[in-house]
Amino acid sequence: MTGRQVRFPLSGQVSRRSMLAGAAAGVVAPVTATVLGGGTASAAPRDRGKPGDGLLRRVTVYAEELPSGLYGYGLQPGKATVPGPVLEIWEGDTLEIELVNNTDRRLSIHPHGVNYETTSDGSPLNDSFNEPGETRTYVWSTRAPSEGPGGFWLPGSAGYWHYHDHALGGEHGTEGIAKGLYGALVVRREGDPLPDRQFTVVFNDMTINNKVAPHVPVFEANLGERVEFIAIGHGNNFHTFHLHAHRWAENRTGYLQGPDDPSRVIDTRDLNPGDSFGFQVIAGDGVGPGAWMYHCHVQFHSDGGMAGVFLVRNADGSMPEGAQEALDRYHQHSGGH
Amino acid sequence: MTGRQVRFPLSGQVSRRSMLAGAAAGVVAPVTATVLGGGTASAAPRDRGKPGDGLLRRVTVYAEELPSGLYGYGLQPGKATVPGPVLEIWEGDTLEIELVNNTDRRLSIHPHGVNYETTSDGSPLNDSFNEPGETRTYVWSTRAPSEGPGGFWLPGSAGYWHYHDHALGGEHGTEGIAKGLYGALVVRREGDPLPDRQFTVVFNDMTINNKVAPHVPVFEANLGERVEFIAIGHGNNFHTFHLHAHRWAENRTGYLQGPDDPSRVIDTRDLNPGDSFGFQVIAGDGVGPGAWMYHCHVQFHSDGGMAGVFLVRNADGSMPEGAQEALDRYHQHSGGH
Amino acid sequence: MTGRQVRFPLSGQVSRRSMLAGAAAGVVAPVTATVLGGGTASAAPRDRGKPGDGLLRRVTVYAEELPSGLYGYGLQPGKATVPGPVLEIWEGDTLEIELVNNTDRRLSIHPHGVNYETTSDGSPLNDSFNEPGETRTYVWSTRAPSEGPGGFWLPGSAGYWHYHDHALGGEHGTEGIAKGLYGALVVRREGDPLPDRQFTVVFNDMTINNKVAPHVPVFEANLGERVEFIAIGHGNNFHTFHLHAHRWAENRTGYLQGPDDPSRVIDTRDLNPGDSFGFQVIAGDGVGPGAWMYHCHVQFHSDGGMAGVFLVRNADGSMPEGAQEALDRYHQHSGGH
Repeated sequence: MTGRQVRFPLSGQVSRRSMLAGAAAGVVAPVTATVLGGGTASAAPRDRGKPGDGLLRRVTVYAEELPSGLYGYGLQPGKATVPGPVLEIWEGDTLEIELVNNTDRRLSIHPHGVNYETTSDGSPLNDSFNEPGETRTYVWSTRAPSEGPGGFWLPGSAGYWHYHDHALGGEHGTEGIAKGLYGALVVRREGDPLPDRQFTVVFNDMTINNKVAPHVPVFEANLGERVEFIAIGHGNNFHTFHLHAHRWAENRTGYLQGPDDPSRVIDTRDLNPGDSFGFQVIAGDGVGPGAWMYHCHVQFHSDGGMAGVFLVRNADGSMPEGAQEALDRYHQHSGGH
Repeated sequence: MTGRQVRFPLSGQVSRRSMLAGAAAGVVAPVTATVLGGGTASAAPRDRGKPGDGLLRRVTVYAEELPSGLYGYGLQPGKATVPGPVLEIWEGDTLEIELVNNTDRRLSIHPHGVNYETTSDGSPLNDSFNEPGETRTYVWSTRAPSEGPGGFWLPGSAGYWHYHDHALGGEHGTEGIAKGLYGALVVRREGDPLPDRQFTVVFNDMTINNKVAPHVPVFEANLGERVEFIAIGHGNNFHTFHLHAHRWAENRTGYLQGPDDPSRVIDTRDLNPGDSFGFQVIAGDGVGPGAWMYHCHVQFHSDGGMAGVFLVRNADGSMPEGAQEALDRYHQHSGGH
Repeated sequence: MTGRQVRFPLSGQVSRRSMLAGAAAGVVAPVTATVLGGGTASAAPRDRGKPGDGLLRRVTVYAEELPSGLYGYGLQPGKATVPGPVLEIWEGDTLEIELVNNTDRRLSIHPHGVNYETTSDGSPLNDSFNEPGETRTYVWSTRAPSEGPGGFWLPGSAGYWHYHDHALGGEHGTEGIAKGLYGALVVRREGDPLPDRQFTVVFNDMTINNKVAPHVPVFEANLGERVEFIAIGHGNNFHTFHLHAHRWAENRTGYLQGPDDPSRVIDTRDLNPGDSFGFQVIAGDGVGPGAWMYHCHVQFHSDGGMAGVFLVRNADGSMPEGAQEALDRYHQHSGGH
């Protein structure tokens, strides 16, 4: 049930050490990418290497049809998942994705938040997609904020972004997205805190990660761990993401810059198609361990199964009092009674 | 038509003085809570006591069925309203709610924005609700921002939050919310300006405070008064809240921190289920007195009756020119003509 | 295809010089307003005059029925467009709009973001509209941020706002809005960068500017030009605006205040009825020239035709490689295939 951390090096480096060694300007280095096992909890290490300076990272992504009829992206053949792996880079890095299309359908990969030329747009408009069986390279680059006009600054690339198909079944990848071709893309800025755990939550039509309760992921962490949520909206419906007993600031990181930061603090946020956001919380901080719900707050969506559990275990990893009973109740979740 | 300010002391204090006297660290003090009379205008005093330091406040809330078939929360038996009373505390305070369930249905109270253990979650998942006729205590705590990882800060609890049922009619309180079990929760930070008037606006399905025009509340203030709106979304539909002739900053308080604060200034904002926000305006500032509309800006929602009036009287409380005629027109509001 | 910059002076000034000459406190000066030709690209000059100090600007606006059955606002008789002209003033200015109703329907003009008395509300509630054939003056004023309570500041008027009918076909102008009576209103603050190009994008029900693909505007700019998008939501549906390969900060200007500004950077944003936002991008910056899509990211909306092209030409204005083919493909856009 726990995801695996997989790195795909260009030239045989497989350990974290070798990735760090490659982290110099202009040196090709592997991307840090996390495979979420079945959409559930995934351990992400604190050490993802250092912010690069024009660092080129490379990854091979496989698009495949799953036995269920869904489609997924994966970092190894036969290992596609819904959502796809978290792709994570430092602001300033460039990411080269070699997309292998192991399906019999036209498809692509289109990112949000980063830079790309029209050839890497991933859209049929720009003739940028993989034919069935085709392998194609997409290049995404990133950059720090820079001075703009009149003393204002142009935005950098750091953010909680996402990627998705833009070609399967139409001009806009509607069928590809509906069937699972999506994932999280994190671009970090130097100094951003790294999480202990990382979870991707995609509100896609009336599902979470193409599942409904009681099959929605149970995300697990231990009391006090730094947990990162990356929330993505897709499909045809509007949604609101709510997490019980935890909250975050409505800005780039979810943290405040200081005690006087005017950012709104929230525990519920609109999550509509194409939008994404992310934040970190300290699991159970101020509220204790237990089974905490996360769900769409549109009432008939939560009643219809858009609800999951964020299980905060005791600090030693043991099950807190009452949590198993809560999980048992969750596994009987139905459409309202 | 005007609401009443009611305080429920633990040990017999009933005056504002006694509340202030109790406002020392560790001392149990009554909560400041405002009963909105029929969902309409409510005077709130400038003096709500001082920011506490771990102050424990207690309040008894009664959940009751109303003659109309709606359900409401109230601060006295037989006095339940829709929306329920504004519960208002200082950041750092703890609030103990003794919820008396005077109905024959399972129900609960679930807050947004504050801290609570699983036993106070208010959800069936955590077996946290009142059976019919049962009294149960829920504890909500709050805290100031604190230093977090890497020089970032963890959010405090201050905000324009809300509370609602999470158990009547299902896992998520869908029936309870639909029928009126909701209200505003304000957590203030030391230094936050206090309002002269305070209004709760809940966009719940296709209603405002479970009413449609011409029965939606007329909120009244005098020119120059500091007026606080607390806006809450509920139900199954998406909405946009628009207030004529007044605007606010999209941040924690609705005020700017200074002339260079980059916050967006708005007069229309998404208000979707589970979301809430609040702000203060100076009534009629720069625009004069009169009958100003507030409404959902989704066209068929406003046409269908999601529209009310913010009546800004002259500074002396008299009716401004043209305002009575506007109110008369409002009382003939229908579904478009 | 290119819009025209038109100024309507009060007393015969027609050149930009004369407008600048009039830009002293208390002096009546023409409004800077841009007519968007057929909703497509419009050149806006860098020089719009200087921030005024209580400057009174005047403009005459004509509301007319179009041959298509739509309605539009225009700055000359017979020249109404959908969307209407961009009305643009400096924070501190007052704008007097003489609205000439050349139709046989009741209608009005209602602004967001600025100050107005009830007589200029534009709503039937306040008896503020034009009868068929009637001419009526509406006055909108603006102001800088000012000190408010407790060291906080009251918002100024600067922002990316909009105006629309509030009277045609009902209390809320639902028919007028549905049929095209809307436009952008920009209030700039001293120091705000001025754009080279300016585009208005209105998501109105299931259309963009009351058009669907392949008839949605192709917005054109040259590589490196400063391009301003003003995005407005209207109607009955929820939407999300996405622009390929460009992004902006979620604050008043879309720029950051500096490298540490915590504002979220985005390339997709909710755009629901009554809401509006704006931002500037450097065309093709970091991504190169080409045909970049902008579209609603709600999948069945984009498939249904809520998609257009932002054509970034080479710096010399020539067509970049592949762009004509992309435009050709766009012109065959259908409901998914």
